[in-house]
Amino acid sequence: MKWLEEEIETRGKILDGNILKVNSFLNHQLDVDLLDKITLLWFDYFKRFKPNKILTIEASGIALATLLAQRFHCPAVFAKKGEHSNMGNVYSSEVYSYTKKQSQKISVDQEFLSSSDVVLIVDDFLANGSATNALLEICKKAGCQVVGVGIVIEKGFQDGGKKLREAGVNLYSLEIIESMDSKSGKIEFRK
Amino acid sequence: MKWLEEEIETRGKILDGNILKVNSFLNHQLDVDLLDKITLLWFDYFKRFKPNKILTIEASGIALATLLAQRFHCPAVFAKKGEHSNMGNVYSSEVYSYTKKQSQKISVDQEFLSSSDVVLIVDDFLANGSATNALLEICKKAGCQVVGVGIVIEKGFQDGGKKLREAGVNLYSLEIIESMDSKSGKIEFRK
Repeated sequence: MKWLEEEIETRGKILDGNILKVNSFLNHQLDVDLLDKITLLWFDYFKRFKPNKILTIEASGIALATLLAQRFHCPAVFAKKGEHSNMGNVYSSEVYSYTKKQSQKISVDQEFLSSSDVVLIVDDFLANGSATNALLEICKKAGCQVVGVGIVIEKGFQDGGKKLREAGVNLYSLEIIESMDSKSGKIEFRK
Repeated sequence: MKWLEEEIETRGKILDGNILKVNSFLNHQLDVDLLDKITLLWFDYFKRFKPNKILTIEASGIALATLLAQRFHCPAVFAKKGEHSNMGNVYSSEVYSYTKKQSQKISVDQEFLSSSDVVLIVDDFLANGSATNALLEICKKAGCQVVGVGIVIEKGFQDGGKKLREAGVNLYSLEIIESMDSKSGKIEFRK
């Protein structure tokens, strides 16, 4: 999508360590009208699979999941990080954060995922796939059907996306970055 | 709002320790159509103050802030919890969580709040007011104008709301709970 590439190029900042900072519109400040345009792309692609639940992980995925769930008129669910005293029985998994260099438990209350659910997973980024794989594992434990994974920005130079496709996951990344350079600020997108 | 009271009574669960669990629609699983109805109430009340930014705190406030920002066609910003290596200069404050019995740092990147901003703060719950006060402190540090605070459920038997009103904050809580009983499951709302 040319317009999305332009937004990422104009408003994103490339930091050392292959970090793309898009917190001015995607995951800290939220350009909600832009995010809504993004969810329309997912909606058009995934609607034939008739998901009845959108699943994501806190916190960056929540705005996207909310706007997509609004299009599907279905609930969104976000996996919670860490320990929560007021949760009931949960499905859990572990996410490894490379920026924080530690694993974190994520959980979904068993009430909100079941074998009758047809789930669409969404998130802002896909790099090594740790968060997506943790959500897939939670869905497996809940016995629900996952119809696909929607990602805004996939880092194509890391292997998360490749492994998911090889495993047969219906992955739809709106933009795949082949390379980026913090010195020149240049981003090369996969065609 | 009768319909909102009914949703809270029907779908909420009262736990010991004056905890109201509304995670089936408000802050874990998200009933997005219901949340959107909630944001319409805030929009109607606050639109005369012309906010240009919606501010909340991760994670429970994000869906609400997103849907409200959609109505205002303005950005939403969520304060991030904990330490983040990729953030630039930030405005910070501390939130004390009574359920977790610990303080946590929250931060907003200085790029996303300035003295020209007219801010509306929203959140799912107001009890002792720790989160709201932390967001107000961040706004004060940024020098922005806060036109009000929108809350879905205020626990009227705790003093957060009372203190904010006494301090002159334009607080609009959609429902204020006077008391609730975990044995009978009964909730008394303020008229």
